[in-house]
Amino acid sequence: MSNINITRLDASSADFDRQLKNLLAFDETDDLEIHQRVLAIIADVRKNGDKAVVEYTNRFDQRTIAQVSELELPPEILKSAWNRLPAEQSQALQTAANRIRAYAEHQKMESWQYTEADGTVLGQKITPLDRVGLYVPGGKAAYPSSVLMNAIPAKVAGVGELIMVVPAPQGETNQLVLAAAYLAGVDRVFTMGGAQAVAALAYGTETIPAVAKIVGPGNIYVATAKKLVFGQVGIDMIAGPSEILIICDGETNPDWIAMDLFSQAEHDENAQSILISTDAAYLDAVEQSINRLLPTMERAEIIRTSLTTRGALIKVSDLNAAADVANIIAPEHLELSVEDPEALCKNIRHAGAIFMGRYTAEALGDYCAGPNHVLPTSSTARFSSPLGVYDFQKRSSLINCSQTGADTLGTTASILARGESLTAHARSAEFRIKPS
Amino acid sequence: MSNINITRLDASSADFDRQLKNLLAFDETDDLEIHQRVLAIIADVRKNGDKAVVEYTNRFDQRTIAQVSELELPPEILKSAWNRLPAEQSQALQTAANRIRAYAEHQKMESWQYTEADGTVLGQKITPLDRVGLYVPGGKAAYPSSVLMNAIPAKVAGVGELIMVVPAPQGETNQLVLAAAYLAGVDRVFTMGGAQAVAALAYGTETIPAVAKIVGPGNIYVATAKKLVFGQVGIDMIAGPSEILIICDGETNPDWIAMDLFSQAEHDENAQSILISTDAAYLDAVEQSINRLLPTMERAEIIRTSLTTRGALIKVSDLNAAADVANIIAPEHLELSVEDPEALCKNIRHAGAIFMGRYTAEALGDYCAGPNHVLPTSSTARFSSPLGVYDFQKRSSLINCSQTGADTLGTTASILARGESLTAHARSAEFRIKPS
Repeated sequence: MSNINITRLDASSADFDRQLKNLLAFDETDDLEIHQRVLAIIADVRKNGDKAVVEYTNRFDQRTIAQVSELELPPEILKSAWNRLPAEQSQALQTAANRIRAYAEHQKMESWQYTEADGTVLGQKITPLDRVGLYVPGGKAAYPSSVLMNAIPAKVAGVGELIMVVPAPQGETNQLVLAAAYLAGVDRVFTMGGAQAVAALAYGTETIPAVAKIVGPGNIYVATAKKLVFGQVGIDMIAGPSEILIICDGETNPDWIAMDLFSQAEHDENAQSILISTDAAYLDAVEQSINRLLPTMERAEIIRTSLTTRGALIKVSDLNAAADVANIIAPEHLELSVEDPEALCKNIRHAGAIFMGRYTAEALGDYCAGPNHVLPTSSTARFSSPLGVYDFQKRSSLINCSQTGADTLGTTASILARGESLTAHARSAEFRIKPS
Repeated sequence: MSNINITRLDASSADFDRQLKNLLAFDETDDLEIHQRVLAIIADVRKNGDKAVVEYTNRFDQRTIAQVSELELPPEILKSAWNRLPAEQSQALQTAANRIRAYAEHQKMESWQYTEADGTVLGQKITPLDRVGLYVPGGKAAYPSSVLMNAIPAKVAGVGELIMVVPAPQGETNQLVLAAAYLAGVDRVFTMGGAQAVAALAYGTETIPAVAKIVGPGNIYVATAKKLVFGQVGIDMIAGPSEILIICDGETNPDWIAMDLFSQAEHDENAQSILISTDAAYLDAVEQSINRLLPTMERAEIIRTSLTTRGALIKVSDLNAAADVANIIAPEHLELSVEDPEALCKNIRHAGAIFMGRYTAEALGDYCAGPNHVLPTSSTARFSSPLGVYDFQKRSSLINCSQTGADTLGTTASILARGESLTAHARSAEFRIKPS
């Protein structure tokens, strides 16, 4: 196997900003044809309900069902999938679930209120979503860890009913996924997928109840359908290719860092793995590790393509410069493999998850550290957050004016409303002013 | 003026669910032509930057500028708009700003972390957005209160730079809006609007810096542009027509309730005002108030159209039934004009803002009670929240494994990763397991 050709950049070069921009660029052109096909499926499911779901599921998943109720898995199926797991796997899933739940409990929002001097009460009331849909892909990206990461925060939030949909091509189901659904407390499971499943969850059919929000990863049809039903229901973010950025001071075993880069690259050819170091010789050492370890990897070809087309090794002058690059990239995963990760972390403004210290491999966070592995990709960490309990709760403002409070506020509101020529607003406020 | 013809429903009728659904239905068909025009404008601004912004602004706003820098208002202009306000208005704006800020401070998220027995640290780091764009409409919907409601939470969150855009047709600016921008601490103002302003903020041009998120209301071109740049930047919700739902036990002065219904209806013909009462005679009394007061209103025709096409008076058997209807509607604004609003509030699961008690007119909350008036419309309160400080902050997960922690977690991660056939993940975790 020939050595890998991985992009080298130097942050001190005059052209670095443009080079970095090119490295990060990823063309996600919206496919208008897919858009229109998905629109048609959604319209069909809205109009024809169960009948449309049956037709699309039989067609796309090579099923032969006569009615949607056949798609629902009875709870015993999930339980038996769980019971049949090897002890090692069920214990590992249980450990992961416990840790994900413990971390999620810290995210739970609570209602609050305060009373002003005149007796007026202001506050914020927190309520969970009534019902949530969890999309789980079939095929190669069917990950039990994803089921836990999406389902557990919803349950911690207090979501009333969690409905999972997962396509079962030719009736095939993934036993690990069903076991994870059992463990996470998923309430109902329908073996359906694609845009038709998203549409059914968004609008409801005779058999499938409408949900308030749809979360979970999926292919381009699923992602497009989620975008198109947004507004009717809430959705989580639309994930791009996964990325890791590692900042290393040159003192971590280069094999460890090479494997951390691989762990991202093995996801798919478009995944992006970038290493930044203050030490050029260390970048060489990691490249040697990459070349030595790559032939031993099960997914060597995916890793090779990912690293050669989207990977990079970047030399910086110091850790402050490394933080600057990280803040431009706003990576999904950021490893701070340095002596004093707390100090460096203070300079990080944008990242989905920050893995601190030489022992904190991203893979630990992917499975069982506790924080969610559903993270903002493609620089969206500039403005968005990991999936969390807060995504399954929402806030209502509370205002309870005392008579005195309404009197005072009424005067202010009246002046402002009249300034905006909204006189019904003004008069409504004025009714609450005490007659003088 | 003839009496108004307002829909009457009875929640105990067999057909109520369907009638309610029809009442709430609002056809928001996506206009494909608008979609394509906006796509073209965005592509042009991405490609040609300032030049495209100049062309569109001159064309759509009847301006005659030669370069984008002419669109920026110097800080003195904002300050002088503020200084020239009548004292009554500046005091009212100041009162509102103080109260909005005080409430917003309660929403501020703080970082947290905890240490496990083996020394592993887990946490969540909160950072503000670097730079935010605030869209403010020109024309009839230019409201200074909206500037305060959008800008103050961003500043409380600690956003580094807040850039306001507001179209100035033929160069005309709204002095109240500029005064509010000064008061709220907006950092820069460009007099531009439409899809071109949204595109410039999303992608940046030579003169206009790219932002991380765009908030604020706008017309269909602005709303479409926001949807299309989502992903490149964050956006707030896309607002539909405004709505109020009032639940009254029949003991509030019917004139007050009529005026509260008007205050929503005067926004525009598509606004929706609904009253629910346990007392049929009270619904008659409010209808009489409506008919008596309507001819005295400045915006009588807008109110009449809104109430006759989208308004309703609904009879329910008891307050529990009223709460059930409210939870189906998931209203933007909910007034609980009843004797014991706290008790009723316990049964409310979905609402943007809840106005409790007979003195709490929605108009007080619209201007100065403190909570935000940017609220989820069109039943989206089922899954979304008022605009708040949290919309201008984001979270990063923190994971710092001790050597012992990595040893334990590495074993679990390895088992799960191998279960998913992700062996680079497994080996990355295994490197952190202590050699036995």
